[in-house]
Amino acid sequence: MDICLASAADLDLAAQLLHDFNTEYNEPTPQPAVLAQRLREVPDTDVLLAGEVGVAVLRFRASLWSSDLECYLAELYVQPAHRGKGIGRALLQATLDHARSKGAGYLDLGTSEDDVAARHLYESLGMRRTEGNGGPLMFVYEIDLG
Amino acid sequence: MDICLASAADLDLAAQLLHDFNTEYNEPTPQPAVLAQRLREVPDTDVLLAGEVGVAVLRFRASLWSSDLECYLAELYVQPAHRGKGIGRALLQATLDHARSKGAGYLDLGTSEDDVAARHLYESLGMRRTEGNGGPLMFVYEIDLG
Repeated sequence: MDICLASAADLDLAAQLLHDFNTEYNEPTPQPAVLAQRLREVPDTDVLLAGEVGVAVLRFRASLWSSDLECYLAELYVQPAHRGKGIGRALLQATLDHARSKGAGYLDLGTSEDDVAARHLYESLGMRRTEGNGGPLMFVYEIDLG
Repeated sequence: MDICLASAADLDLAAQLLHDFNTEYNEPTPQPAVLAQRLREVPDTDVLLAGEVGVAVLRFRASLWSSDLECYLAELYVQPAHRGKGIGRALLQATLDHARSKGAGYLDLGTSEDDVAARHLYESLGMRRTEGNGGPLMFVYEIDLG
């Protein structure tokens, strides 16, 4: 499965996959056309596609601590019918490679305790949910401000 | 204790506090003058100060899902001698208010399992480390790309 950096023309497909992602997890979701427009507007954001079945959304920010960038992996999704074939792994590996090639020295993401398959994938590529090896767990805290 | 939005002139103080923060937790840290310059350079970033003893660093990004902003609370620190007086609470409340006033509909942060005082503070102001009420925990995963 080829992984490629999405061009503007690919963002309709990326938006459809993100819409599928939200729908699968019962999250509210804008319509794909609205999402595609949003993906064209938001700055400092790259999208990777795995064929027509997987998507990753990378948000970059300047590090406070060095002249590097940092990358926040906002979304990673493979359609259910295409799971178990290593596509998520290839997409995450391509994400790490792409972030590094853009000058990011660090990548983070948030995930759910019960998303065991994703957590196994992250750990298999060297990601940690602890501060240092064997340190305390790191939690995401969030709040809606609406 | 007055909480204020840091002006460019205040960023030397903010940088000194961030340097203290890293030093307290044995993290590598640039010198304060380097940090102050970095705070002046990085875009989409606001700094709040609690007098001369506390600092919060807010990073804003455009949401994918709406025309709102999202806010990542990258740093929150009160000097040890000034803890236990509600300064962290006032700083976090001001952070939430400021993020909302800038158009953010959502705020997130990452914290350590063993930072019990901070976690209590986050929870006391309505932040959650679960997906929905009583849902699964949310973990931060990270990796250095250097």
